[in-house]
Amino acid sequence: MRLVVIGGVAAGTKAASRAKRVAPELEVVVYQAEPEVSISECGLPYHVSEVIPDRERLVARTPEKFAENDIEAKVRHRVEAVDPEGRRLTVKNLDSGETFEDTYDRLIVATGSKSVKLPVPGADLEGVFTLKFLTDADAMKAYIKKRSPERAVVVGGGYIGLEMAENLHHLGMEVQVVEAGEHLAPTYGETVADRVRGHLEGQGVRVHVCAAADEVSCVPGEAEDCTGRVESVRFGDTELPADFVLVGIGVRPEVRLAESFGVKLGETGAIEVDENMRTNVADVWAAGDCVETTNRVSGKPMWLALGDVANKMGRVAGTNAATGQPTLAFPGVLGTGIFKVFDLGVGATGLSEGEARDAGFDPVSVTIEARDRAGYYPGARPVLLEMVADGKTGRVLGVEAVGSGVDKLTDVAATAIWARLTCDDLVNADLAYAPPFGPTNSPVIQAATVLSGKVRSS
Amino acid sequence: MRLVVIGGVAAGTKAASRAKRVAPELEVVVYQAEPEVSISECGLPYHVSEVIPDRERLVARTPEKFAENDIEAKVRHRVEAVDPEGRRLTVKNLDSGETFEDTYDRLIVATGSKSVKLPVPGADLEGVFTLKFLTDADAMKAYIKKRSPERAVVVGGGYIGLEMAENLHHLGMEVQVVEAGEHLAPTYGETVADRVRGHLEGQGVRVHVCAAADEVSCVPGEAEDCTGRVESVRFGDTELPADFVLVGIGVRPEVRLAESFGVKLGETGAIEVDENMRTNVADVWAAGDCVETTNRVSGKPMWLALGDVANKMGRVAGTNAATGQPTLAFPGVLGTGIFKVFDLGVGATGLSEGEARDAGFDPVSVTIEARDRAGYYPGARPVLLEMVADGKTGRVLGVEAVGSGVDKLTDVAATAIWARLTCDDLVNADLAYAPPFGPTNSPVIQAATVLSGKVRSS
Repeated sequence: MRLVVIGGVAAGTKAASRAKRVAPELEVVVYQAEPEVSISECGLPYHVSEVIPDRERLVARTPEKFAENDIEAKVRHRVEAVDPEGRRLTVKNLDSGETFEDTYDRLIVATGSKSVKLPVPGADLEGVFTLKFLTDADAMKAYIKKRSPERAVVVGGGYIGLEMAENLHHLGMEVQVVEAGEHLAPTYGETVADRVRGHLEGQGVRVHVCAAADEVSCVPGEAEDCTGRVESVRFGDTELPADFVLVGIGVRPEVRLAESFGVKLGETGAIEVDENMRTNVADVWAAGDCVETTNRVSGKPMWLALGDVANKMGRVAGTNAATGQPTLAFPGVLGTGIFKVFDLGVGATGLSEGEARDAGFDPVSVTIEARDRAGYYPGARPVLLEMVADGKTGRVLGVEAVGSGVDKLTDVAATAIWARLTCDDLVNADLAYAPPFGPTNSPVIQAATVLSGKVRSS
Repeated sequence: MRLVVIGGVAAGTKAASRAKRVAPELEVVVYQAEPEVSISECGLPYHVSEVIPDRERLVARTPEKFAENDIEAKVRHRVEAVDPEGRRLTVKNLDSGETFEDTYDRLIVATGSKSVKLPVPGADLEGVFTLKFLTDADAMKAYIKKRSPERAVVVGGGYIGLEMAENLHHLGMEVQVVEAGEHLAPTYGETVADRVRGHLEGQGVRVHVCAAADEVSCVPGEAEDCTGRVESVRFGDTELPADFVLVGIGVRPEVRLAESFGVKLGETGAIEVDENMRTNVADVWAAGDCVETTNRVSGKPMWLALGDVANKMGRVAGTNAATGQPTLAFPGVLGTGIFKVFDLGVGATGLSEGEARDAGFDPVSVTIEARDRAGYYPGARPVLLEMVADGKTGRVLGVEAVGSGVDKLTDVAATAIWARLTCDDLVNADLAYAPPFGPTNSPVIQAATVLSGKVRSS
């Protein structure tokens, strides 16, 4: 029995390892187009800045390590076609250029996601980057070493853009962020976004909102293709000088191959799978950034590209592909996310007030200003927490937090939402208190207590 | 309608404030024997060391502040007797020495807890302290100023003892800890306790276990009562020189007054209340350290003296005393606790494996070694997490954690246990991941995943 896994980052390698553990007799091969498998992509912004200097640290496991567990991980190999009836694959060795055929009994598609390219002139100039693969980081580092850029423009104020803003600033560049929407951190509400903007500006990063990049220009006299060097980014009448441009305007699921052999996509544009991570094509599972899942609060399909989710999905897909049975189920997500920008943490889970309304709830919400330690304990720093609950049932629907200690607050809220707790359930929740760790009542409890009153009176 | 609250720390002041908010027409008076109300007792160890230099910061609200909300907070007033039939109280003004009568319609007993005195000769010598009240901290600080002690012995390795060990060390004293039991942090398991000991020793604090203090001796020639100065602490044949002794061998509920007028105690020795914080005596509620509650995992009575629990109980008692109805219920606790000793956090929630067995579960457990950030992210520090689950149902029963980031892990586990989640429920829980905040899968998820396999196979 031969299992082929297409894609070797978080979901693919987890699926392969898990399948081999569940069914040691299984032949397992992973095809990965990039030069490495098992990349910790979330660490890439910090590698660009040399905060994480060792490239090797971002490669969790090499093909040699996989070989020790009798898993064949073939890098620089791209699967170009799949014949689901014949259970055959066409694979291209990207180093030799040679194409060969392989067979499978079971297949896992873990083709991941790709960066959205800036859809304006000049997007291919030298010095304009997206960040998705370790090779992207390599290219940036080579360019930085060669050109010593001093003025960076980050196009896109989402988490990759903001993490990169921090890391480029760390390299000594003057950084400006250009966001097309009305505020930074577009998946967050305005209150949180304002804090993020204030914090960035406090660090000397300039922020432009409602600023859709119209054009990227190259150094005069140089070719206006990828060999010419970037000189500026323009939005409307504003021209920002730039010798480094990071484009972080989003990612999309990489589904071309899957579509080509009849795998059905869902309404988000990512691969549709059942709760066992099985696609509509026989003996084909899918996992990671290329699939859509269900938001457990809204009940709606949700696509999100996050390493921890991919890892969990990989475990489910790998197990089920190994057994051939619906052994494990993936229960969906809350859309939990977190990022850091300089000294500020930004986290969210569940639905925003608007999303809650769209999902048919009757939301009530509250904003709590608190600190990450007892107010009298030295070093206490601020944190803001917004909580949304259903006004009818009191069910906690979502939380956003910005400031210090947001990872704890986000995780507590995520656990509560995961368990479908109500505000009333949380009011007396026995969380851990000591002055160095938080206020007497966790901001989550404070918020739940206020909302509990609103629910009763609504 | 007159509500009298006996005791003005966490539970008493919360109950008073809450009652006044719920029923603004209520006359509310708080009697407090100590010179201040609303003391943040958990901050006291850090005040002794001047880590929190301002005494005022530890007084959350003064009687004047309470007066602004039309609550009469009378300090240095001790309630000496209660006549529950006549709804009368005898109160002693500790400044004037005068005794007077007062009346109540509803009464809340929030008399708190008291430190256990060391039951050996010399326990009253000058320089031997317990730490419970702000006045205890005042006395220590005065002694430290006058005597400049250099060698401290901390008797008792629980959280007060360990927090004080850190703070006395911070003052430059040479510190030794003497614990009667087999390991430090007696409410924790041995693995966690070993880490704590290693960390203390790494800071230069000497630790003696199985070392019950037998005698405290005074400077030769000085009176062997509270006017003589401490010179050493002896256990067995070992004599430790000491010019400062902190006794942290536990607290007990302060129930003398309650018992004297017929309030029933529970099996833990603290006041028994129903879920509405009502005692067996008509129109008398009780809250805080003087009452017992229910452990929601074991279902058994539990007594614990913690500020956050007292605060929550006070809210329930205050509301119900104001309405005269069972308006709110206090649902019990998990026994969640946390403390910091130097750079190490130590937290727990729910049941240990032994407690789980005693409570009729069939526990399985796992220990996870992880880090507080992605392994490749700079500054990642270790954390150890032990999780206990029921082998039959998979229900998560308890967690202990030691290291960095334990507050988050303890709170996530506490929320999960509060919601009665199983290991299976947690395996795919959508917690927040980014490299600066933790490993790809939270140690809570890692532990749940391992236990999930054990449950299936058990």
